[in-house]
Amino acid sequence: MFLNGELVPTLAKGCAVLGAGGGGETRTGTLSAQQALIDHGSVPLVDVDELPEHGIVMPIGVIGAPTIGLEKLPDLGAARRLRGEVERRMGAPVVAVMASEIGGSNGLLPLAWAADLGLPVLDADSTGRAFPEVQQVAMHVAGLKPELIALTDTGGNVVVLHVVSGEWAERLGRNVAVTFGGCATMVDYPMRLALARDVVLHGTVSLAMRIGSALEAGGDGPVSNLVAELGARRLIDGKVADVERRLSGGFVRGSATIEGGGADAGRLLRLEIQNENLAAFDNGRVLATVPDLICVLDAHTGEAIATEVLRYGQRVAVIAFPCHPIWRTPRGLDTAGPRAFGLDLDYVPVEDIEEATCV
Amino acid sequence: MFLNGELVPTLAKGCAVLGAGGGGETRTGTLSAQQALIDHGSVPLVDVDELPEHGIVMPIGVIGAPTIGLEKLPDLGAARRLRGEVERRMGAPVVAVMASEIGGSNGLLPLAWAADLGLPVLDADSTGRAFPEVQQVAMHVAGLKPELIALTDTGGNVVVLHVVSGEWAERLGRNVAVTFGGCATMVDYPMRLALARDVVLHGTVSLAMRIGSALEAGGDGPVSNLVAELGARRLIDGKVADVERRLSGGFVRGSATIEGGGADAGRLLRLEIQNENLAAFDNGRVLATVPDLICVLDAHTGEAIATEVLRYGQRVAVIAFPCHPIWRTPRGLDTAGPRAFGLDLDYVPVEDIEEATCV
Repeated sequence: MFLNGELVPTLAKGCAVLGAGGGGETRTGTLSAQQALIDHGSVPLVDVDELPEHGIVMPIGVIGAPTIGLEKLPDLGAARRLRGEVERRMGAPVVAVMASEIGGSNGLLPLAWAADLGLPVLDADSTGRAFPEVQQVAMHVAGLKPELIALTDTGGNVVVLHVVSGEWAERLGRNVAVTFGGCATMVDYPMRLALARDVVLHGTVSLAMRIGSALEAGGDGPVSNLVAELGARRLIDGKVADVERRLSGGFVRGSATIEGGGADAGRLLRLEIQNENLAAFDNGRVLATVPDLICVLDAHTGEAIATEVLRYGQRVAVIAFPCHPIWRTPRGLDTAGPRAFGLDLDYVPVEDIEEATCV
Repeated sequence: MFLNGELVPTLAKGCAVLGAGGGGETRTGTLSAQQALIDHGSVPLVDVDELPEHGIVMPIGVIGAPTIGLEKLPDLGAARRLRGEVERRMGAPVVAVMASEIGGSNGLLPLAWAADLGLPVLDADSTGRAFPEVQQVAMHVAGLKPELIALTDTGGNVVVLHVVSGEWAERLGRNVAVTFGGCATMVDYPMRLALARDVVLHGTVSLAMRIGSALEAGGDGPVSNLVAELGARRLIDGKVADVERRLSGGFVRGSATIEGGGADAGRLLRLEIQNENLAAFDNGRVLATVPDLICVLDAHTGEAIATEVLRYGQRVAVIAFPCHPIWRTPRGLDTAGPRAFGLDLDYVPVEDIEEATCV
């Protein structure tokens, strides 16, 4: 299968949903990917088995606070600078680009980088969603240490990290991104295909395409289509009553309040945010938490609204659906469960939370 | 000439003076260098001409706030981790270690690292003193861009910077040091000897030895010996009346007030500090500024007191003496003159400042 500019809007809708509020709003990512696919031609979407085992897959994405991306355009030359570092250090050719996270703009920009490099995109990613921190990836859950991490800014600086743990990758990578002005393009955990095969989350680009297609289908309307496609819980229908959002330590942090309407009149849903939607509370009762995905959808189009563009008055539906199973393992929860984000909550899978609390 | 443990205390006295308050107090540096020279044997002190042109000289030192060094011992294994990076990236062997700055502990620790690596120490450095910022080195004044900069912490993390300018080296290197807990061991501007020959400041280890020897000689007393050796101005004799010192952005910043005694009774000298002593004022009148060296000396031993151990009640003499001529060039002053530190002052060479203002 080839990815071309016409498929990008559908893919973007799926990536926005899988972003769980994060990964960067998809408007500039859509335009950047489309332009790159026009400039360089379409990009093959491939599975691990189509690539040589000795070759390297290069997971890539933007690290930083998504709000920065509202003013700073993606760095489309970044992949070239970073590929050189990866190949020099690892002594093998990069044979495919992969999204570090399929969520948000970070699911789209790898198309642009792959087109620029003349490489295919792997139908896989490292998270199956978007997460704010560097070590919140499948490779860390699998117990791997990043062989190298490389970051670059639009000015042409390149920083290479050789770290003793994923947590150090986050500390150092975050501070480098902040020093670069709030965001950076990063390659993290580049791997031989022989290793990647057993670790990455397969089929997530295709999943994003399916989600996008469900939103574009007719029938009962986009939100209902999406709920059916994902097996999601619909947490509330209403409007955004309040957003508190700030830049802090290279993240967007804050919270949002959704005021119920219609059948949900009188209810208030509170969302806690760190780049992504971390948890949803109804009058202090937990409705859903990381690592499950919580999405704020436009009530009419069903399109997911990123945390950095959430604002007062938007008519929305909030849904939640299960994360990839690796995040529900003990090490998955250590890495990206509620306590990994400082939330003093035990994780309960969203489908097990008492039905009565949902719509 | 060989440097052995017995010479270290003399060298340390010289390095403390050339530190101009910075480069780290020399007590732990002295002990570390002595121990390494016992463990690994003495280290040759060599000139550029004794080394192969194609080989690499590795300038090395500690970056960060000197106060951190009061609690965190030097990382004696750091040079091994950094040499590997340098050789891999530059494709040539490291044949000598050089102090990035001869001032303070940073003039002593290269002996320990050289001993550990089994390499000679070059009789040279990049500053002829100590300066707080990464780009404040002779290579930057010569218009060179660092080919690479590598930092490491005691935990074994290594960060490699490929930067577009010395200023970016400072921004990124500083933030990495802060992320590492306030300090890091850094190799900056490693170079082929063929290039280093024309750029580094030659003979500065020997200079530090001469200064240390002058302090140890009898005669008129250590402070007077030193003033004669250096052609220094004696700015005030008195005691430390006040010190204001804080950690800020990976630097020690603050000021100190020296209250005159004896012939200087009634005078107050104020020192502005950013790791090093930046400027000395007498009732608002400038007595000396960077890039010239301002040193606070113990009134009895003549030994220089680092800014991080300056404290109320110390009996001191403050002296100032001319910097290396490269710092008085236009680009030298752009890099490390008063305005480079945010001081709204024109530079006047210390020897040209009106005699009447000095003792």
